[in-house]
Amino acid sequence: MQNKVRIVLVNTSHPGNIGGAARAMKNMGLADLYLVAPKHFPSDEAISRASGASDLLDNAVVVDTLEEAIADCQLVIGTSARERHIPWPLVDPRQAADLVFDEGLETAFVFGREDRGLTNEELQRCHYHVHIPSVDTFSSLNLAAAVQVIVYELRMKSLLMKDEPVVASKWDLPAATAEQIDFLLEHLETVLVKTEFLEPKTPGKVMTRFRRLFQRSQLDQQELGMLRGMLTAMEKQMKE
Amino acid sequence: MQNKVRIVLVNTSHPGNIGGAARAMKNMGLADLYLVAPKHFPSDEAISRASGASDLLDNAVVVDTLEEAIADCQLVIGTSARERHIPWPLVDPRQAADLVFDEGLETAFVFGREDRGLTNEELQRCHYHVHIPSVDTFSSLNLAAAVQVIVYELRMKSLLMKDEPVVASKWDLPAATAEQIDFLLEHLETVLVKTEFLEPKTPGKVMTRFRRLFQRSQLDQQELGMLRGMLTAMEKQMKE
Repeated sequence: MQNKVRIVLVNTSHPGNIGGAARAMKNMGLADLYLVAPKHFPSDEAISRASGASDLLDNAVVVDTLEEAIADCQLVIGTSARERHIPWPLVDPRQAADLVFDEGLETAFVFGREDRGLTNEELQRCHYHVHIPSVDTFSSLNLAAAVQVIVYELRMKSLLMKDEPVVASKWDLPAATAEQIDFLLEHLETVLVKTEFLEPKTPGKVMTRFRRLFQRSQLDQQELGMLRGMLTAMEKQMKE
Repeated sequence: MQNKVRIVLVNTSHPGNIGGAARAMKNMGLADLYLVAPKHFPSDEAISRASGASDLLDNAVVVDTLEEAIADCQLVIGTSARERHIPWPLVDPRQAADLVFDEGLETAFVFGREDRGLTNEELQRCHYHVHIPSVDTFSSLNLAAAVQVIVYELRMKSLLMKDEPVVASKWDLPAATAEQIDFLLEHLETVLVKTEFLEPKTPGKVMTRFRRLFQRSQLDQQELGMLRGMLTAMEKQMKE
């Protein structure tokens, strides 16, 4: 699915941004980079900023016009920083990722010039405009940063569609059981009473708070063993 | 709320990344930047890459240790590229943004060195680790790009919490009514019959497809007027 999405950079001035965009794409599993009339390309600075994603630069398709870059695309989404004269269907980056995956169409995301974005004519070639929701008073993102946001949302969507957690803590030990927690709390209470930290006749909420703590922290077996061992060691040190 | 979140960069090598991080922060409405023992700072390259966010660089708090940078924080979330020896609670960037806003705590996001990330000791000072879900075979993001992803998710969350659309197409004209669409379709059908495009006895699904098109495209009043005008003009040109 992800292979059906291309990134199109129009008239990029700074080759470092091309490299940064390539790195962001490869990080997020995208490969197809189209460059429309880049100012400086190929470029050592692009390779340097790509930092291991120079295969995307080697395979980049360099063309003269936006029309060529999007000719075979079924869905074209252009990044837009500001309101245009003629309103256009506008989505945020998350909605844009939804469009791509829900429709399953050959898609291009089009990014404009560092200083001026896309022209009105270029924007009118897009089915949708996507706006990254920056603050009004400082709204212009770095080009590679804007690419990063879009490809990140595409990656998140592709992972979320698998209906699995995007990241999962792989705990290496099984969690303590409820019964083990009960035994731990009983042991703890015994020790606390022996140390006179806890007055059996007026215990207050101390044990409830300990229960809440150990349940919330989802103790694993090893941690449970450590706590039990600590209590046993404390008991041994106490005066009769 | 956003003001309670700080970005902490540990031992950054490349000042351009500090500038890029500052720009990303300001774009997304964050202001508080902490630098732990940066290699080169202040720096002209940082100012250049900050591109208008140099106020964040001027106000950056430079300290010697991570402990100082996070001393007054209630929630510390560290970026982690890979599985560590001791498993730690792990979230994706969207879940991290949820944590920040759901808990309402003074929060630090901690980013490590360009080449080696955070040390195990630094990671252990974090309540949570956040992992940006890059592909396994090319997993290391540029530092400023990683900051961009996190601050973007914080911004999205802050906007989504307001229960308003993150971006909204502000259409400048009212949409056509159902009745107007009906009149348009009647007019169109008349013209299509006159032109013999449509055979009244065997119309097939032509008009249904036109209806679907004009309804789906949510015609506005001006577009409706244009289409009606076009049909009228065509009628005038036809032979009796």
